[in-house]
Amino acid sequence: MVPGVFCKESGYCLLIAAMLVARTYCDVWMIQNGTMIERSMFQMPISLVNNFLKLGLNELKLCCRVRLTKHLYDEYLQGYTYYKIGNLDNRIGNPDQLLTQDVERFCNSVVDLYSNISKPLLDIGLYIFKLTSAIGPQGPACMIGYLVFSGLILTRLRRPIGKMTVMEQRYEGEYRFVNSRLITNSEEIAFYNGNLREKQTIHSTFQKLVDHLHNFIVFRFSTGFVDSIIAKYIATVVGYLVVSRPFLNHTHPRHLRSTHAELLEDYYQSGRMLLSMSQALGRIVLAGREMSRLSGFTARITEIMKVLKELNSGKYERTMVSQQGGRGAHRITLVPGSGEIIHKDKIIKFEHTPLATPNGDILIKDLSFEVTSGTNVLVCGPNGCGKSSLFRVLGELWPLFGGRLTKPERGKLFYVPQRPYMTLGSLRDQVIYPDTVEDQRRKGTFDKVLKEYLDHVQLGHILEREGSWDTVQDWMDVLSGGEKQRMAMARLFYHKPQFAILDECTSAVSVDVEDFIYSHCRTVGITLFTVSHRKSLWKHHEYYLHMDGRGNYEFKAITQETIAFGS
Amino acid sequence: MVPGVFCKESGYCLLIAAMLVARTYCDVWMIQNGTMIERSMFQMPISLVNNFLKLGLNELKLCCRVRLTKHLYDEYLQGYTYYKIGNLDNRIGNPDQLLTQDVERFCNSVVDLYSNISKPLLDIGLYIFKLTSAIGPQGPACMIGYLVFSGLILTRLRRPIGKMTVMEQRYEGEYRFVNSRLITNSEEIAFYNGNLREKQTIHSTFQKLVDHLHNFIVFRFSTGFVDSIIAKYIATVVGYLVVSRPFLNHTHPRHLRSTHAELLEDYYQSGRMLLSMSQALGRIVLAGREMSRLSGFTARITEIMKVLKELNSGKYERTMVSQQGGRGAHRITLVPGSGEIIHKDKIIKFEHTPLATPNGDILIKDLSFEVTSGTNVLVCGPNGCGKSSLFRVLGELWPLFGGRLTKPERGKLFYVPQRPYMTLGSLRDQVIYPDTVEDQRRKGTFDKVLKEYLDHVQLGHILEREGSWDTVQDWMDVLSGGEKQRMAMARLFYHKPQFAILDECTSAVSVDVEDFIYSHCRTVGITLFTVSHRKSLWKHHEYYLHMDGRGNYEFKAITQETIAFGS
Repeated sequence: MVPGVFCKESGYCLLIAAMLVARTYCDVWMIQNGTMIERSMFQMPISLVNNFLKLGLNELKLCCRVRLTKHLYDEYLQGYTYYKIGNLDNRIGNPDQLLTQDVERFCNSVVDLYSNISKPLLDIGLYIFKLTSAIGPQGPACMIGYLVFSGLILTRLRRPIGKMTVMEQRYEGEYRFVNSRLITNSEEIAFYNGNLREKQTIHSTFQKLVDHLHNFIVFRFSTGFVDSIIAKYIATVVGYLVVSRPFLNHTHPRHLRSTHAELLEDYYQSGRMLLSMSQALGRIVLAGREMSRLSGFTARITEIMKVLKELNSGKYERTMVSQQGGRGAHRITLVPGSGEIIHKDKIIKFEHTPLATPNGDILIKDLSFEVTSGTNVLVCGPNGCGKSSLFRVLGELWPLFGGRLTKPERGKLFYVPQRPYMTLGSLRDQVIYPDTVEDQRRKGTFDKVLKEYLDHVQLGHILEREGSWDTVQDWMDVLSGGEKQRMAMARLFYHKPQFAILDECTSAVSVDVEDFIYSHCRTVGITLFTVSHRKSLWKHHEYYLHMDGRGNYEFKAITQETIAFGS
Repeated sequence: MVPGVFCKESGYCLLIAAMLVARTYCDVWMIQNGTMIERSMFQMPISLVNNFLKLGLNELKLCCRVRLTKHLYDEYLQGYTYYKIGNLDNRIGNPDQLLTQDVERFCNSVVDLYSNISKPLLDIGLYIFKLTSAIGPQGPACMIGYLVFSGLILTRLRRPIGKMTVMEQRYEGEYRFVNSRLITNSEEIAFYNGNLREKQTIHSTFQKLVDHLHNFIVFRFSTGFVDSIIAKYIATVVGYLVVSRPFLNHTHPRHLRSTHAELLEDYYQSGRMLLSMSQALGRIVLAGREMSRLSGFTARITEIMKVLKELNSGKYERTMVSQQGGRGAHRITLVPGSGEIIHKDKIIKFEHTPLATPNGDILIKDLSFEVTSGTNVLVCGPNGCGKSSLFRVLGELWPLFGGRLTKPERGKLFYVPQRPYMTLGSLRDQVIYPDTVEDQRRKGTFDKVLKEYLDHVQLGHILEREGSWDTVQDWMDVLSGGEKQRMAMARLFYHKPQFAILDECTSAVSVDVEDFIYSHCRTVGITLFTVSHRKSLWKHHEYYLHMDGRGNYEFKAITQETIAFGS
């Protein structure tokens, strides 16, 4: 994340630093040239400097955010990390919030801290220099001594704030979680009529948060007193004592050559400087509070960076509650990634592979079957029997928990989901997804060919209606269920993979289009795994794989008898 | 949302007001008693006042948030509004964010604005009073005149800020949307290997946001200059001119009885007051900026309040793109809520009811069938054929688009979803959901009976393992798929509804438990609609409803032949 030396960020850092120096010099000038009219006239350059400072800070925040976001996305969108983070690992609850809001807050917090600390440090350095030359090194030394001492006390007093901030974040998180949970499960809850029950849950979570916030406010209120007494009031008193000392001592060499008025002016200036210095020191001590807030964000950002790195290197963590529960019998110890994947064209072969969900629920203990190019397979069984798990293992989304799997490379196996996915973009993008226009050109597929694919699945009218391949629409909403399914088929024709999994993806497609799809796939050499309960599809397949949801499966050839009597 | 007169909020408002008055008096005192040491000693009461002010503001923010949140939840969790908002209406994209973050920001913004406006107003009033008695009413009048004039200019200059804030919110929203979209569709995208394509989308959305933020920063930077020139610098100059006038006029009655020193002191004090007043006016003018931010939040909050109210009164809006698209043939005009629902016990009867999705996709044009208590029905057909839609209409989650539906009241029809929902809470809560312990007691169901229900579905061991009905766990994670399905069955036994819809919810349950469930339901008089492809279940049903996903359906009695040959 840390950029090189010569870049925009350094530029803004320099701008900020220059503006901070300018601010400090303005302050010093104000102290030394005290008439009121002069001061108010001098507000102009100060507001100019402030304006530049704000520009620098804002631009720096934005640069930081862009850089950090780019870095995180590079990790997040590498391979299937975005899938793994939500489905295989459960350490990061809501990556989208982290990637959008938390990154922004972290950057703001870092940059603010930079200016909140460097300005007082600069002030202190300058005032020490000026004061030392005015009243000797002893005064500032006393002052610093006192402030280090008070800083230690305050840090100790303020320790609970860090913990309370963390608690606040946690309660806020829980509160957000029960909210999004309600939305995720809204249909089930609505069917159960569970709104009053859920209201209780949400209210109690909210109440917990509110109580905590209230306590936090009261705590900050009470530490606020101590803070201001120690860091401001006593500091000022100490400051004046320190400044007065040389003036009270009439034998001091400085007083020998001054008039009374000069002496008074001298005393006032030193006093103001010391006041400013003690305020600057107070600000540094108070910045400690900001620091603990920042450390919260830093922890979250570090966490996601760690998780992303681990996921990218194939490690994932998930509480497998079920294994610890000791329900023994139907669970075996699973080691993710302990299976072996061999890439080979035109064959899919499972050898003694267990089929299990990532949290350790075993669906099938030992799966073995072999499919070669040209043999279509019908996959059937009740929901939750392991069909999707099988495909996820085939798509290499889920780790292999054992055995051996021989299959073509990732790109040569295509999955057409139940709920066809339409990407944000043009009509062309829907057909060639995930290819880009450049990929299409490189493959040498002309638009005319794309139009043919659309015509095959009776979607030619969409191109005519929209007028152009480049029309951008919210295709997820514009297309009806059946149109989306047919679009997914056009996409399949475009990519021509060796194998394709059709997961109930022709349910809203008419029989003639369905028949055409199967015969076209056979012509261009796409071997199909079909999930469907439709009798009319049996004739397009040579084998069936039936899983009964209780751990048993059957892999058999489809004969005339199977077709007549059902499985 | 506006509370009564005597409550916590008023108390905090008073506290804040009192503290603001105290602050103003402190400021005036500081102006009138100007020696440096006095001033620095006086910092103590000021920091005390500031501390109280902060307490008041924070508590008021919290109170506001609690009140607004409670109000919104009362609407949100009334009936199925939480379901409708996400599934039937598409005006509010992310209600959870609105209910958590935006409410908080809105309250903070309102309270800040209250203090940001009332303090300067108070200052201005006080200074006008003091100045009028010191230098006559003409001076302050001039000053106010100038500031109203400059306020008008600045408001005009600042107009784009409001629009830019709205744009920023929109871009931020889009950016969050592409992120959550990626997570929602992560599996499909992972299967398609679409990460690079999605990265492009995310990057371009992010870039749009960054470009806008950059422009916004630059715009604020440039208006910042004009702002500070007009609202601060020229205001100060005007102020001094106004103050100086009476002093330059030596014939003025005030000067006749004063020494030179008194005159100077008088001049200084008036000058300081005018400076403070012009700063206060400047702050009010600048508060206009805050105001436009607030108006953004207000718009969002008003929007959700309106939508919630409309949803609660049965109105909903959804862009039915498909109807406008003019694909004519398979779409008819749908009027939500145009059907008639009649509540009657022990019968479910559809009469010429169309089955359609909320965005106008018609699944079945005209559905008619009748089921009386005691007749189990098997519902089958491919995904997307309308099974879920049928149940949603039965559960009154979706509006009826026409025809007539006779059914028992909501509570007497139970739906057991494919993915059983476990609530946050104790083991007991899982069985009696959505009832509370009080409801259980009122119904007179003893824990012993609950234990029997668990035993029926072979879950008795869970109670033994956990030790108590009150153990709280994350049951969604702790229970395996099959255990969750059996828990849902225990819940069904507890509630004993007239009708129940079993939506592939016994797929991971062993045959003997499944058989027990069906015979137990028949014994206690629960009539079942089952969605399942399992042959073994046919024998428990008298009728079947088959939908083919292309708009056709069959409702027929199950005979020996149907069982032998399949549907």
